[in-house]
Amino acid sequence: MTARKPAHPLIPADRVNGTDVVNKAGDKLGKIEDVAIEKVSGEVAYAILSFGGLLGLGAKYHPVPWKLLKYDADRRAYVVPMEKADLETAPMIDETELSGWTDEATRDAIFKYYGAYGVGPYWM
Amino acid sequence: MTARKPAHPLIPADRVNGTDVVNKAGDKLGKIEDVAIEKVSGEVAYAILSFGGLLGLGAKYHPVPWKLLKYDADRRAYVVPMEKADLETAPMIDETELSGWTDEATRDAIFKYYGAYGVGPYWM
Repeated sequence: MTARKPAHPLIPADRVNGTDVVNKAGDKLGKIEDVAIEKVSGEVAYAILSFGGLLGLGAKYHPVPWKLLKYDADRRAYVVPMEKADLETAPMIDETELSGWTDEATRDAIFKYYGAYGVGPYWM
Repeated sequence: MTARKPAHPLIPADRVNGTDVVNKAGDKLGKIEDVAIEKVSGEVAYAILSFGGLLGLGAKYHPVPWKLLKYDADRRAYVVPMEKADLETAPMIDETELSGWTDEATRDAIFKYYGAYGVGPYWM
């Protein structure tokens, strides 16, 4: 492994979770439901963007690579380079998967989809 | 970066937080208060073990490297190779630091301390 300088700005997961997610124009897309951590390495595989739904029902969950989240302090939200229409076609996981996403095929699909935004697989 | 096989077991941060932490004998040491994520890389720098306190006051917060946490399904707790006495001398952070730990000296101290347990700095 190559030595690299510590990048020390840190954020607690509880502060990430619940934060709004907007597109570049500032329109709200959803919010961060949770972050998925790789058990062995401790890397965040992706954040889960919850999207849509009403009165707690019907929400959809989109895994989004961590590196696509850019925090905007003025908007108090994460900005992502997607539109609502993109989310409709992006990989989704269902609610039962929120408790432990171990499906490798799903994860490969996520990073294949987001390759268009310049984000490579975090494990390579 | 060298290519490595995906290690796909994942866990959501909300499931990590609140989990009990025990020593190897099974004695409760505290619980995971939160995990600190590096903003740029998405790596979990460390988990925060909350320790002691009464009625919500006086708790102490110990950053513990992620790789020292081994989940024990029977005990429904993370096992760490430390004793309560070790925690008394381990690096601590105070409550105000819970909202964003950016102190590099603190992080270096943490990994220097836990070097004795065979855990190296995650950024090297």
